[in-house]
Amino acid sequence: MYDTTLRDGTQGEGVSLSAEDKVKIALRLDEMGFQYIEGGWPGSNPKDMEFFQKIQQYSLRNAQVTAFGSTCRPGVEPHEDANINCLLEAGAKIATIFGKCWDFHVTKALNTTLEENLRMVRESVAYLKSKGLMVFFDGEHFFDGYKANADYALSVLKAAVQGGAATVILCDTNGGSMPQEIQRAVTHVVEELPGVELGIHAHNDGEMAVANSIMAVQAGVSQVQGTVNGLGERCGNANLCSIIPNLALKMGYSTIPAENLVYLTELSRYVYELANLNPIANQPFVGESAFAHKGGIHVSALMKEPGTYEHMNPEAVGNVRRVLMSELAGISNLLYKYKELHLDKSSPEGRQVLEKLKNMEHGGYQFEAAEGSLELMLRKAMNGYREPFQLESMRLILEMREENPIHSEAVIKLKVGDQVVHTAAEGNGPVHALDNALRKALETFYPEVAGMRLSDYKVRVLEEKAGTEARVRVLIETGDGKKTWGTVGVSTNIIEASWQALADSMAYGLLKK
Amino acid sequence: MYDTTLRDGTQGEGVSLSAEDKVKIALRLDEMGFQYIEGGWPGSNPKDMEFFQKIQQYSLRNAQVTAFGSTCRPGVEPHEDANINCLLEAGAKIATIFGKCWDFHVTKALNTTLEENLRMVRESVAYLKSKGLMVFFDGEHFFDGYKANADYALSVLKAAVQGGAATVILCDTNGGSMPQEIQRAVTHVVEELPGVELGIHAHNDGEMAVANSIMAVQAGVSQVQGTVNGLGERCGNANLCSIIPNLALKMGYSTIPAENLVYLTELSRYVYELANLNPIANQPFVGESAFAHKGGIHVSALMKEPGTYEHMNPEAVGNVRRVLMSELAGISNLLYKYKELHLDKSSPEGRQVLEKLKNMEHGGYQFEAAEGSLELMLRKAMNGYREPFQLESMRLILEMREENPIHSEAVIKLKVGDQVVHTAAEGNGPVHALDNALRKALETFYPEVAGMRLSDYKVRVLEEKAGTEARVRVLIETGDGKKTWGTVGVSTNIIEASWQALADSMAYGLLKK
Repeated sequence: MYDTTLRDGTQGEGVSLSAEDKVKIALRLDEMGFQYIEGGWPGSNPKDMEFFQKIQQYSLRNAQVTAFGSTCRPGVEPHEDANINCLLEAGAKIATIFGKCWDFHVTKALNTTLEENLRMVRESVAYLKSKGLMVFFDGEHFFDGYKANADYALSVLKAAVQGGAATVILCDTNGGSMPQEIQRAVTHVVEELPGVELGIHAHNDGEMAVANSIMAVQAGVSQVQGTVNGLGERCGNANLCSIIPNLALKMGYSTIPAENLVYLTELSRYVYELANLNPIANQPFVGESAFAHKGGIHVSALMKEPGTYEHMNPEAVGNVRRVLMSELAGISNLLYKYKELHLDKSSPEGRQVLEKLKNMEHGGYQFEAAEGSLELMLRKAMNGYREPFQLESMRLILEMREENPIHSEAVIKLKVGDQVVHTAAEGNGPVHALDNALRKALETFYPEVAGMRLSDYKVRVLEEKAGTEARVRVLIETGDGKKTWGTVGVSTNIIEASWQALADSMAYGLLKK
Repeated sequence: MYDTTLRDGTQGEGVSLSAEDKVKIALRLDEMGFQYIEGGWPGSNPKDMEFFQKIQQYSLRNAQVTAFGSTCRPGVEPHEDANINCLLEAGAKIATIFGKCWDFHVTKALNTTLEENLRMVRESVAYLKSKGLMVFFDGEHFFDGYKANADYALSVLKAAVQGGAATVILCDTNGGSMPQEIQRAVTHVVEELPGVELGIHAHNDGEMAVANSIMAVQAGVSQVQGTVNGLGERCGNANLCSIIPNLALKMGYSTIPAENLVYLTELSRYVYELANLNPIANQPFVGESAFAHKGGIHVSALMKEPGTYEHMNPEAVGNVRRVLMSELAGISNLLYKYKELHLDKSSPEGRQVLEKLKNMEHGGYQFEAAEGSLELMLRKAMNGYREPFQLESMRLILEMREENPIHSEAVIKLKVGDQVVHTAAEGNGPVHALDNALRKALETFYPEVAGMRLSDYKVRVLEEKAGTEARVRVLIETGDGKKTWGTVGVSTNIIEASWQALADSMAYGLLKK
């Protein structure tokens, strides 16, 4: 398992990691038992060189850090090449260098001869090896090159082997290859380079990166390169969060130590968090929706036997089964949710709650993305829950003159226990002003609200009644840096619906603290 | 190409489509040339039945609408089964019914015998066929069933063929199968059921849905079921936005008419918009980042020759490369629709308009569902269009006391020609109050505004991480009973964004009168 989140992953749009973030991720990958961590391209930017200096202060338990770079340039000896010398300065014990396998690229992009390219590959590998490094050779565009000129593509790999490469990695750089093309090409390479350790480096432009990696392994490759969550340029790299459980749990290959698979979901969320990206809910294996069930018949079968509608146990990768509420849900979904919250469906409170939920869903509430509001509702019905605050009054004033932006001001009066707080705040808009006023009022009683941030806000007009007087549903998602929760409000007034969802988001956050 | 966005797609977490949304998507899929559109499960909820009633008012050019359901229940004759009868009531000419192929499911979830299950499949298909319907049979859990008991799984398919099924679809219901397992099983089915038309229905739990669908096609399947953007339960269904270009552009299969592939990106965004979901930026083929280049060497090579770092031409699926100035290409597509405005892209006004559009798109405007705002903008720039009214000032006051509903009041001052109107109105919410005040002000000048009604109102937070102070985009749809039009507003203030979209909606409606 060769992770390149820190190098190729950061080529993704919107992905930016500081040197400290990179160190944190490297330590986490090491703990998880990854064998190789590609730290960066020391010749390309100072941040990557900084990472290599910082990481030397730690002694990793499992992983070896690799430094990425290219072969020497045309017409240059490896020892004279600045890029090659940066690889030596980085201090990593493994260098991964890429060279071109596609004849068209050699002549079009490099502007050199096919023969000179072979020399660059062979001598660059040999030089780094002579300096005591282990060398991995990334055959850039191998599969496109193989399609265009198989003999030449293979001769480039052979040049790397002649130079002394420990592993030769076949790259689908443009990400457009189909699984059977990968299978055929890898099978041919295995025949042509007997005894050479091979790797696969796939991109996801055809939505095939995971499948292509698996096909390559089945055809004889032993090193798999990829990134956490499939981060990477364009459509991303091969997603290790999917490749690892597929190989380990379904096909019996050894990847990272078996006991660490349960940390996979946590690793995925951790990397999203440090990269400041929103997790993709329906991401296989580790996504929040990956084991979320909505269809009524599925849920009733699941209650009898989880294997009926799950391809594996979510706990094996540290994820959890969730049952969603929606109009598609049969009664079984509700019952399952009761089980999770230890509610007795046959008690009077249980029946009352069920009735109330049905009425609320009929009225336009949707709880599948608002489990915070659902849980608050259930807890209120169980009589053991007391709200952390109550609204006494609220006033919002919005004013606009000609081309100036709207001025928004919120005034609120809350009751917290016996005390009354009366305060006001401005904001960029009415919800922001309300949010600010609510936080201002609560912060003296509950300092933890400062750590909660609204991360998504959706509004939906319920079309059963058309026009601006229609009911609207507001869904709010709030996070505290570790987990996120959804809350919901419904009203003909968007501000009232927003207030309900906002108040629930704070109340639920406080409950969970 | 069999689309099940409207049925299986809505099983996805957070996916909720009204009957009107479903009709709109069905019309779009028909235009694109999809062969089959699964409209819903008429027996499961009233919204799906409503769709089947509404869609009968349209004559589709390419697609046939199918109704989804299950076989009859154990111990029940098809003609006595409520679910089967709902399929007949739906009025679709094709019924797609699912039956269980996994012995474990038959005994565990259905609580019946293997023999009885075969009877249910055979007789349900035969009954629907006898009523004049074409029947597609979805073999639920076929691949898991095949692994557990291949003979039984095959006998279920054979029962469907005996009943008269037109096509037998192999479903990877739990989504956990690997590509080579799919290949082997499909190859076996082709041998066992010679001459029978086969289909594939894959789920993405192992991140293999697209690869598995392609493998099945290569092994002999001719119908591919999937959803737009891969929406669907858990990790989603097979993504038709990836399968179509893979099959059509890389493998030479016929899917939808070749000339419609360029609308694939627009289709993807349209469905995200109606489902009120955030598009996934790095989604293959149609995502915003799918052809976005960041790496320095990639960019310099791309400038020499796009094929060096792109697996295909982004324009083939209506997407754009994002490195150079080519973001304008996306706008050019939009402008194509307004050919009648005679916009010359090379004239000074043309260049100015393109620059402005590009800046607006960068700022979060999106014109795919807001052609009203786009046309107003173009007319303002091009041919001396004069606005029917201008806002001088606006004030909104919202007040709430304890449990009472919020009181919403809007005061606006407009200039219409030389005259000034200063008026006020209440409403169920701030947008309704604004809408009422605007109509009240306009009605004396333009009585036709009385016939225009806002029919949908959507809000999208653009920078989710920014919390309540993020920019929001408001999309409004307005209708006059004959046609509908979309308008858009963007601001950090939801009221300001709503005002922009609302003002455009009236102005565009007046323009079209």
